[in-house]
This record gives sequence, C-alpha cells and structure tokens, in this order.
Amino acid sequence: MSSKTNFFSFLFSILFFIIACNQKKEETVDNSNNNSHPKLILTAKGVKEIRAQLGTIPIFDKTLAKVKAAVDAEIENGIEVPIPKDYSGGYTHARHKQNWFTMQKAGVLYQILNDDTYAKYVKDMLMEYEVLYKTLPLHPKTRSYARGKLFWQCLNDSNWLVYVSQAYDCIYNYLSAEERNKLENNLFRPFADHISVDSPQFYQRVHNHSTWGNAAVGMIGLVMDDQELIDRALYGIKGVRLDKTKKDDDGGFLNKDGKAGFLANIEEPFSPDGYYNEGPYYQRYAGYPFLIFAAGLQNVQPELKIFEYKNGVLLKSIDALLNLSDADGAFFPLNDGQKGMSYHTSALVSAVNISYKFGGEAPGLLSIAKEQDKVVLDDSGLAVALGIKNDKTVPFPKKSINLSDGPEGKQGGVGILRNKEIELVFKYASQGSSHGHYDKLSYSLYEDGKEIIQDYGLARFVNIEQKGGGNYLKENKTWAKQTIAHNTVTVNETSHFNGKYEIGSKFHSNLHYFSADDANVKVVSAIENNAYPEVNMHRTMALINDDDFEKPYLLDIMKLTSAKANQYDFPYYYFGQVLETNFDYTTQNTLKPLGDKNGYQHLFLEAKGKAVAGNSKFSWMHHNQFYSLTSVTNSKDQLLMTRIGANDPEFNLRRDPALILRRNNTKNTTFVAVIESHGSYSPVSESAINTKSSVKEVQLVLDSKEYTAVLITNINDTTNLFITANSNASEQAKHSITINGKNYTWSGTYYFQ
Amino acid sequence: MSSKTNFFSFLFSILFFIIACNQKKEETVDNSNNNSHPKLILTAKGVKEIRAQLGTIPIFDKTLAKVKAAVDAEIENGIEVPIPKDYSGGYTHARHKQNWFTMQKAGVLYQILNDDTYAKYVKDMLMEYEVLYKTLPLHPKTRSYARGKLFWQCLNDSNWLVYVSQAYDCIYNYLSAEERNKLENNLFRPFADHISVDSPQFYQRVHNHSTWGNAAVGMIGLVMDDQELIDRALYGIKGVRLDKTKKDDDGGFLNKDGKAGFLANIEEPFSPDGYYNEGPYYQRYAGYPFLIFAAGLQNVQPELKIFEYKNGVLLKSIDALLNLSDADGAFFPLNDGQKGMSYHTSALVSAVNISYKFGGEAPGLLSIAKEQDKVVLDDSGLAVALGIKNDKTVPFPKKSINLSDGPEGKQGGVGILRNKEIELVFKYASQGSSHGHYDKLSYSLYEDGKEIIQDYGLARFVNIEQKGGGNYLKENKTWAKQTIAHNTVTVNETSHFNGKYEIGSKFHSNLHYFSADDANVKVVSAIENNAYPEVNMHRTMALINDDDFEKPYLLDIMKLTSAKANQYDFPYYYFGQVLETNFDYTTQNTLKPLGDKNGYQHLFLEAKGKAVAGNSKFSWMHHNQFYSLTSVTNSKDQLLMTRIGANDPEFNLRRDPALILRRNNTKNTTFVAVIESHGSYSPVSESAINTKSSVKEVQLVLDSKEYTAVLITNINDTTNLFITANSNASEQAKHSITINGKNYTWSGTYYFQ
Repeated sequence: MSSKTNFFSFLFSILFFIIACNQKKEETVDNSNNNSHPKLILTAKGVKEIRAQLGTIPIFDKTLAKVKAAVDAEIENGIEVPIPKDYSGGYTHARHKQNWFTMQKAGVLYQILNDDTYAKYVKDMLMEYEVLYKTLPLHPKTRSYARGKLFWQCLNDSNWLVYVSQAYDCIYNYLSAEERNKLENNLFRPFADHISVDSPQFYQRVHNHSTWGNAAVGMIGLVMDDQELIDRALYGIKGVRLDKTKKDDDGGFLNKDGKAGFLANIEEPFSPDGYYNEGPYYQRYAGYPFLIFAAGLQNVQPELKIFEYKNGVLLKSIDALLNLSDADGAFFPLNDGQKGMSYHTSALVSAVNISYKFGGEAPGLLSIAKEQDKVVLDDSGLAVALGIKNDKTVPFPKKSINLSDGPEGKQGGVGILRNKEIELVFKYASQGSSHGHYDKLSYSLYEDGKEIIQDYGLARFVNIEQKGGGNYLKENKTWAKQTIAHNTVTVNETSHFNGKYEIGSKFHSNLHYFSADDANVKVVSAIENNAYPEVNMHRTMALINDDDFEKPYLLDIMKLTSAKANQYDFPYYYFGQVLETNFDYTTQNTLKPLGDKNGYQHLFLEAKGKAVAGNSKFSWMHHNQFYSLTSVTNSKDQLLMTRIGANDPEFNLRRDPALILRRNNTKNTTFVAVIESHGSYSPVSESAINTKSSVKEVQLVLDSKEYTAVLITNINDTTNLFITANSNASEQAKHSITINGKNYTWSGTYYFQ
Repeated sequence: MSSKTNFFSFLFSILFFIIACNQKKEETVDNSNNNSHPKLILTAKGVKEIRAQLGTIPIFDKTLAKVKAAVDAEIENGIEVPIPKDYSGGYTHARHKQNWFTMQKAGVLYQILNDDTYAKYVKDMLMEYEVLYKTLPLHPKTRSYARGKLFWQCLNDSNWLVYVSQAYDCIYNYLSAEERNKLENNLFRPFADHISVDSPQFYQRVHNHSTWGNAAVGMIGLVMDDQELIDRALYGIKGVRLDKTKKDDDGGFLNKDGKAGFLANIEEPFSPDGYYNEGPYYQRYAGYPFLIFAAGLQNVQPELKIFEYKNGVLLKSIDALLNLSDADGAFFPLNDGQKGMSYHTSALVSAVNISYKFGGEAPGLLSIAKEQDKVVLDDSGLAVALGIKNDKTVPFPKKSINLSDGPEGKQGGVGILRNKEIELVFKYASQGSSHGHYDKLSYSLYEDGKEIIQDYGLARFVNIEQKGGGNYLKENKTWAKQTIAHNTVTVNETSHFNGKYEIGSKFHSNLHYFSADDANVKVVSAIENNAYPEVNMHRTMALINDDDFEKPYLLDIMKLTSAKANQYDFPYYYFGQVLETNFDYTTQNTLKPLGDKNGYQHLFLEAKGKAVAGNSKFSWMHHNQFYSLTSVTNSKDQLLMTRIGANDPEFNLRRDPALILRRNNTKNTTFVAVIESHGSYSPVSESAINTKSSVKEVQLVLDSKEYTAVLITNINDTTNLFITANSNASEQAKHSITINGKNYTWSGTYYFQ
C-alpha cells in the first residue's frame, strides 16, 4: 500500500514539475476560442479545469498516473505499424488495436500534461498510418461480410477511427495545416469512406456494427468540421438503400426496414426503457460509440440535443445496463453474451462518466465509478472525480425492474426480480437481432453474483485465436442458440420458431404483469403464443421471501396449453454435484447423445429417472452451497440427467450438467417447481449447515384458464398459497375463487398468503 | 469496519466491567498453588497474565469477543443433550459435537472473565451427561469397528473427552467434592474405560484414531490426577495385545507390530522430519490430540519433557505440516485428503499457538497466526497475541523442502519444490497407513494456490449426511485410491502393488536426490522398484526458472525399465477446456468406460488421438489462464482424452478431465514432458496475453543406465540442456559425458545449462 502511494506521489511530483515548466504554454491553451481544439470529448475548457484540480482528485490522479505509465511504456517500446495480416487474436490485429488505444491516451496526456512528447508520438504514428493506408488493399482475410483494411472486418476499422479521431482532436493544434491536410486527405477521409460508402452492407444498417461505423465517420467529421460526414453519420449514406432480403454472417437481415444512420440506430434497438435489443453484452460493446459520439455531438453541436433524443433514451440505456448486471457487476449473458463481461470494462467507465456528467450527476453512479476505480481522463471523468472527492457517493440503487423491449417498448421485455441476495432474470423479449437465442420465457437465477441456474451464454472464446480465431464457433448455432440449451420448455425436440431467424424476428412474448412493490413477493408473468404455433406458453415466476425459509425461494409456474399431445422437455441447468434425489434413477454405462438435432445432439444422457407421483426432489451442491428443486410431477414423467459435450469434435463446449424433466404425450399441462438455495459447507471446519430443503410439499391445487394456485407446505407444516390470475390481471380486476371449500378474494394480479 | 470496531469496543467495555466486579474472586485464583486448577491447558498463571493484558492484545481480545458471543448464544439457546441416534451429519451427532466445543469454550470464559454463568453452564451440562451416560448402551448405528456411546464411533467419543477434560479442568474448583466424585465415577472414568479397555481394537493401536483415544484418557487422567489413566494413555492398556492379522474398516491392519499408547503413536507415524505417514489431511486431524495432550503433559508433568521426545518431533511436525500447504494455506491432498482443508482450521490455530509457545517463539508462526486471525484463549494464545502486538511478525518461510517418511526417516518421503509462484508436490513415500493411495512417484502441480495438475483427493463428502452419511464412499476404493486416478504411470491397467494394502505396506520408494540450493533449478529424483515387480520406475522432476519463459516450468522425466513389453498409461489430470493440440484426435459419439477394473471403469473415453513423432503438444485453458504440455512421443503412442464419471451410480465423482498418454508393447522407455503455465485472459477487457507455449521442442538426446539428457529449445531458438545422473548421484560423484560430440563435465547430481 505504502509503496504504491509512494509511487503515485512520485509520479505526481513529476506531473507538477512538467506542468510548472509549461506554464507559458498553458496560457496559450487558455486563450483558445470555442472553436479551437480539443473540442470533441476532452474540451479546452475541461483541460483548463483538469489542470487546476490535478493532485487533489484522487481517482483521477490515480488513473492519470496509470495511463501515463502505460503510454510511456508504449513510447519506450517504439512505434509499430505492421502490414495487416491476421484475424483477431493474431499479432497485426492486436498491434493495431493497441495503437488505437495508445494514440487516444497519448492525445489526452498531451493536453493534460502539456508535454509535446505525447503529441509527437501521436503525430509520428499517424504519419506512419498515412504512408501505410494509401497502399492497402482489402484485408487479406476473407471471412467477413465487410472486410476492413487495417483489420479483417470494417467493424474493427471503425473502432480504430472512433479512438483515433479523439487523438487527432487532441493534437490538432500541434500539427501544421500542411500536416493536417495530408492526414485528412490521405488517411481520415479515405478511411471514413471505406467504412461507409465503400461498405454499405456494413454501414447502412441498424446494427451494432453500423453504430460503430456511424460514430467513426461522425467523430472524424466533427473534428475536421466536415458537415457532410456528420450528416452521413447521423442519417446514413444519402440515397443508398440495401437489399432488404439479404443476410449477414450471423444470419441476421442486412437491412429489413431500409433505415440507417446514427439516429436510426438509437431509434431502433433501444426500447423507451433503454433496453438494447441484442442484450447487455452487445449493449456494452455498442454502448461506447453511442455515448462517445453523443458526447462529441453535445460538445460540438449542442443544438442537436442528442441526449434528449427519444426521451433521453441514451442515458436511460446506461441505467438499464447497470441494472442488467449481477451483484458483482457482471452482465447477465442474455442471447450471445460472454460471461464475465462486467461494468468494470472500460466502455462502461466511459458510459458511467458520461451519464454522470450529462445526466444530472446521479450520485448512485459514483458508487459504480468507485468500484471501477478509474475515470475517463476528460471533462466527464473530472466531474465524477469531484463528486467522489466531495463525498456525494451513495449506493447505486439496483432494484427489481421491468425493461420493455422494442423501439416503442411493445415487443416484450426482460424482467429482473431482486429479493435480498437472490436475483431472477426472466426473458420474454423479441428475437434480439442476429445475436438472439431461441429461448422464449427462459430465465437464469443468481445469488450474490453466483449462478444457481445458468444460462449457457455464447459458444465463443472472444479473441482467443486458437479457438476458431476468436470468432463464433459453429456450436454457437448448433447448441448455444437452441431452445434446449435454455431454462425454458422445448416441445417435441424442436427449438422455438423451428430455430429460424426469419420467423423468430416476427414475434415477441408479451408481459402479463410485473409486480415488485411488495417487499417480500416479487412476480413477473408473461405469455408466448408463437414459439410453437400449437402451444401457448404462460410462465409466472415469483421470488418469495418467507420467514420459514433461509433465503427467498423461486416459485416457477409454466402453463402450457395445446390441443394436441406433445413431448415437453423442461431443463434445469444447475452447477455442481448431485447430492440426493427422492426418485430412483439409473446411470448409463454407455453415454449416448439425447437426440440428433436442435441441440439435443450435444447432450449426453448420463442417467434416466422415474418421477414420483406428487413431488420429485433433486438436491445438489456447488461451491460449498446447497440447492434443492421440488417439482410437481406425475408418475409418468421422466427425469433425465444430462451433460453437455456430445458431438463436440473440438471440445468447444463446457461439460455442464442439467436435469431435464420430460413429460410425454400430454396436451395441456402446467409445470410447477420451487428452487431453493440453502445452507453452506466449510471444508475448513467440515461443518455442513442446513443441507436439506425446507419444502415439504408443493401442490398444484387449482389450474384453470383463469387461475393457477399453488400451495407450498414447508417442513414446519405451515403453508402458503400463491394464486396467479391467468387472464385478467389488471390492477382493477377483482377476483374471488373457492379452493378446497375456502374462498379467496383479491384484486389485481396475484394472491399470496 | 467502524461498526465492527464499535461492536468490539462495546464487548470489551462489558468484559472489563465484569472483571472489575470480580476483582476479589480474582485474588482467590492468584493465591492458588501449583497443583490447583486450571492446570491442563489454560493454567492458573496464564489466567492471571491474560487478565492483566486483556484489552491491549487485539487478536486475543477479538477472539475472546467472538467466543463469548458464540457461547452466549448457545447458553441462550439452552442445553440439549439428546439420546444418541445419528451418524455424522445427523442431529444428535451434530448436537453432541457442538456441546463439546461449547463446554470447552465456556470453561475458558469462566476462567478469563471470572463469571460464574459459564461455570454453571458447564456444570449443568455435565450433570445432564452424567445422567444420560449411565443409561447408554452402545450407539445404535452399527457401521463402526469400534462403536462409541455418544457417537457412532469411539473416535468421536474420544474427541468429546479431549475437549470436555479441558472444560472440567476449568470448572474443577467451582464444583464441590461431591459433584466432582459424581462426575468422575459415573461419567469420566466409565467414559475413559469405554474408549480404552472396552474398545482395545480402537485404543490399542498406532493410528490417528488411537491417538485421540490416548489423549482423551490421558487428559482426563491429568485433570483427575489419576496416574493409572495417564500411564494407560502414554503406554497403552497394560497386558493387552491385539491380533496382528486383523483389519479395520478401512482395510488397515489393526495392530501389525503390537505397539500402543501415546508415545508409540508419536514414535511410529512421524518421520524425524515431522512428516506424518498418512499425509497432511490426517495430520491436521490427528495433530490436535498430539499437541493438546503434549501441552497438558508439559504443564502438569514437565519432567516428562514431551516436546523433546524423539528429537522434538512434535514441534517439527507443525513446521512440516505448514510446509505441506499451498499458497492459500490449503493442505496438499495426499492420500485421503479432502480439498480445502487448510491451516485456517481451528486445530491448526492451536498447533501454531502451541508451537510458538513451546518451540522457542519462531516469529514466522506469527504471520500464520495473523492469517488465521484468531488465537487459542490460553497461555499459548497469549504468547502469540503478545508477539503480534510487539511487532515480531515475519513471513513464514515456505521453502522447497524434502520430508522423509517412516519412523526413522528411511521410507521414502515427499519432496516439495517451490520456484516463484509454482509449487510441485512429489510423493515417493511409504503406503501411508490405511489412508494411503496406490500412487508411487505421483505428483501434483500448483500455481499461487491453484491446481494446475490435480491430485483427485478422496471420494468422500465429510459430514454431509446425504452422501453416504458423510463417510468414505465406495468410489474412494474403486477410484480415488487406484493408480490411474493419479499423475503417475499405470502398467498394464493394474494399480501399484495390485492395489493390495498388505503388499503396499511392505514397501516404499527411495530418494535418489533432492536439490534445491540453486535459485533457478530445483530438482527431486526418486526410484520405485516394487510397485510392479517387473518394472523399475525412476522419476526426476525439475522446476526450472528461465528468462525465456514467463514462469518456471516443470520438466518431468519418468524412466521405466522392464525386461518385458508392457502397456504404460501416463495421465495428466488437468482442469478446464482443451484449447489446441498439434495431434489429430477423434471424439467419440458414444462414451464408454476405458476399462472394467482398477479405476479404469470410472473413466469415460471422450476422444482418441494419435501422437506425433517428436513432440505432442496439448494446450488448455482454465479460469482465464493458459497451460501447455509438450511431451516427447513417438508415432505409435496414443493420446486418450478421458473424463471421470463412468460406473458412478450415485454421482459421487467429479466430472474432471484427463489426457492420458498411452505407450503400448514397450519394454524400457522414458516419458519426458514439459508443463508450462502461461498468459492470461480477461473477460472484461477480452484481451488474451501469451496464449501459446514457449517451448519449440523437447528432445531426449541421451538415455542410458547412467544418464538421461533432455534438450529444451524455446521459441527464441535458445536451448537448455538438463542431464540427470541416474545411478551415482552423490555429491562427490564426477561426471563426464559426450552428447552429439560435445563434452559435459560436472559433479554431483544434475547438469543444467
């Protein structure tokens, strides 16, 4: 601790020395007018304020010292601008990526520290890019639908320009007019053209890729004061319309509606609640260009009022994204989401800082910034640093929240229930664009940031070259996107919408009700009528806090209506080891795949059990905690214990287990289950606490078109009754029913007592 | 932080108030003579000193506050002394266990706080035990070879008495002579008799169970001043000799040599280096009675000089045990060891405190005590608390260390190599009593407390009732003890010594050499000639630190000599996911067990590969780190990718993977491999660093009876040559050999350059 402190003190001494030595230069900057540079993200005014505060704003000072150390190491290392050759994960890819980050940072350091070393470094590197870029054909790797020049895909070229525009803005005044002309004519304009007019299949869309392209073109346009580029960024390439039936690499439509440009990209994927239709992993990725370009627009063209666009959806989206993270800040891996990505990622540092500065300085954001333990070195980072310094921090209010999906909030959504340490993520959204999974009404369950019932996430090792170049693996399609890979029902071993993107994209689930006002009972209920044309699915999930239980438990009711007899498979993707069951099962001596398509080909059947008439109970243990599932079953139900990994010729899939409840040859049926987390084990004291379920019995006591009622008896023999209104669940609805001779009356959505 | 501080301040205020109120009573204690109580562990002199220091010794004060809170909660809860009924994990077992801990603590609190509440609690509970015990038949559960009365096995009855003797000592003077007589005649003496004279098959042995029995009888003897019991503890039951051919539940001989008693139990299982022959997990368990009884003996009968017995082996054993832990303090799971058990367990708090007080106050022990964050509330804990308070703490010196096995240190041993963050545990010991595994010359590899190449440990869920009552599972014998479950060679699919305890117990491996003086190269080499009568095994393992590698790597040379052609299976129990191989393999669509016995029946074959002539390379990823194995292979070698879990009808085994290198139809051969840990991946920044092996080639350039030489070429094309002397490796030996026309000369053990 003290050696770190010393190190930073030492760095600050140097910083102040540098600043003192350059006092005169500083005055030059101070005299700059509004139109002078920097102006895009870091502003001349901001630079002045930052310099005045340096050394008194700990989180900013610390970030600055780290950034300086990193950039100094890169400068020491020398400039490398290699001829493009590799996919992501390879050397040239990694180098050019490193370069964009370093240039952006060096530009900022030049401004804050007023040290020409950094400006010269950026200039020298840009000049090398100028020389190289002129000579470049398309990138030699051919896998992308839109090849870049520095990188194998235009997407990464756009990333580069988003960062490098900021660097260019910072050293703009350091360069001569001649140097600027050279860079603008030979590098920036052709670069912006390649990713836009030369690559409309990439640029002219509503898609996270296009957002990067729009931001890149717009930001360099703002720096160069080029309104044509700014307009191209905001509204798309004039006059270009793409074939509406064409598809990209991921199987998504290139441009179904013909919309394009930054504003369309804000309009389309964000719901009014700020939910991004591809899910939080892609929002995190797409978020950076949205916000950084918006910040630039706000700084340079405040009359656009970009942060008020669509009722302030950009700022709302940050709040939504922060709420889409578990207790450790990791985003829920809805759709294609890589686990472990969290609000500690640098894009979120920027998002939180921008949201704080441009969104009314909400003090809860400061607690996130503190966890991130760094700020952006610009005006917004300064605001955050001052907020923290002035003790304005309060905890970020993570709450049970319902986030609508769809441009107008009318395409389903995602409901998050939070009750003490337990979190439920329930997905009843639209398809989620090309990164969507076929998992209507699926969920995952968390405790204190740990998965109890997991969503698999994606089948990809992002940026790990050995695994398919770091790109999507074929198992993403054959496994991760399939319905059976998710905690929802699969009917007749086919995925929702037959796993077809064109069909899935047409539909969405609908919220039945969301109720989170009661401190102890949080409920979300939604309906899906299109995943299977002949089966209606209605799922109601409640997180219930009850004194007779150690922690809140999950009550899960999935009501299926079908005129025709079907096979229903209902999986629980738990983790860890089987502890105990109340049903008999037989393990298989030879493991065979459970099926031959729709994801079933990837599941080995490890054991087969026969359900108990009444309740089937399954307990497991993971990381020294205990869990129990109590499911309402009949004696014809099967319980299949499976493990992922069949037909996986390159070991691309994790060997995770599941319990699948299979109900065969059934028309209408309702799956009811309670999931508890309980107890703990210490391998140090070897003591096992509360290792058993507190549920004695779960009974489906009523199940009609209008109502489903579940009676939960705990081991102390006290009971709770939960009744959900299946049809009319408006706040005004009055309900009165008789169950086992007793009358229950309530209004609104559900009854619990 | 501050609320905790307040809480403790509050508790201390109360403590001081209590002490002040009892000033007069305290003087009574001060005037006690040497023979007065307490005298066993906490002594009257210690009590006086502790009272004088209270409030100024933070770690002691904090422990006291916690213990007081815990005991107060138990007192509040009321006394429960149920009729014995359950196995471990069940209610009556857990309750009686809780009672012994609470009584011991309450006794200590009575002394330190001078508050009769605690004495009365202990007295009342003891009186309930007195009433109950008289009526008790043998425990109703019949599985043990030596049934207790309070518990299903005498072992737990002995645990109870070891703690309760301390409680009795603390309240001895609080009781009337009549009360003492009642307890001694109806409870303690019959209790001591049941676990000794009535259960000789438990008591009259050299075994960790017996040590508990000896300590229990001896400690109550010391408190009651009963020399007959003390002698029974030290030397065994007079005149009783057990059948030397009988076996216990675990398959161990009951009493092969006819030895018994505490001194024999010190003599036999500890090597002169303090290695306990069953391994660290059982030493941790057995350690407590050894040390607590020794401390009692030292306090009451110092003339015995118990801590000097066998050259001070009891104290040496603590140093050995601390060295047998990984960077997080978890013990290496040699033989039957449950993973996660660590020096944070309370038995080790006691061991470290006793070692500090009675072993010359080694300051390194204070750093362990600080990590444990508590002390024992007695004279030894006071010494530690004062040491920490007076800033005497230095880091505990964990080093590369060779620990001999066997009563005279002549039965092989365990070598631990430590090189920066990498630790190798190499086992060339004797059978390790009934808890031994058949794994001669096996190893496990760690990095910063994380397993790189794992030892499976035991197949048991200690104290988790749902899993076989918390006892050993049958898979412990059929899997965990078998050779194929370990990182060593299995010949012709049979375990070492045919998996027979009688044979294994007769033999041990032999150290060839151990060399850890060089800062960069640490080597251990050992020979095993009896595991397979016709195959001689000689393994040399080196941890090498080289500037061309990110971290120290493991060089593994296993030289096998056999006149007859065999099949050799050489597994690597890695964790995580396959990243890349340089050899082709085919995954199996149907998984079948690899064999039908000797542990093979528990392995599913997931894929089959064909080795590369030269080097076969296998890379994997686990918890965001990368690992590579480069193995010298020929084109006839097979590479089998397996997963544990076949023939596991109750899911008792973990589904862990292995790579098995199989060499068929071969007489003499040498397996050579390099294992590297390298690089890292961040799911937050999605950057992958140093994902590939730094080894270009590993070549076996010479392999004769006298020498084995391995040339390692790294990706920078620099080379290192390692030569090990296979026959004469004495310090004085002079070596001179020619490899590829170049002469190498050295003396002693190995050559590396």
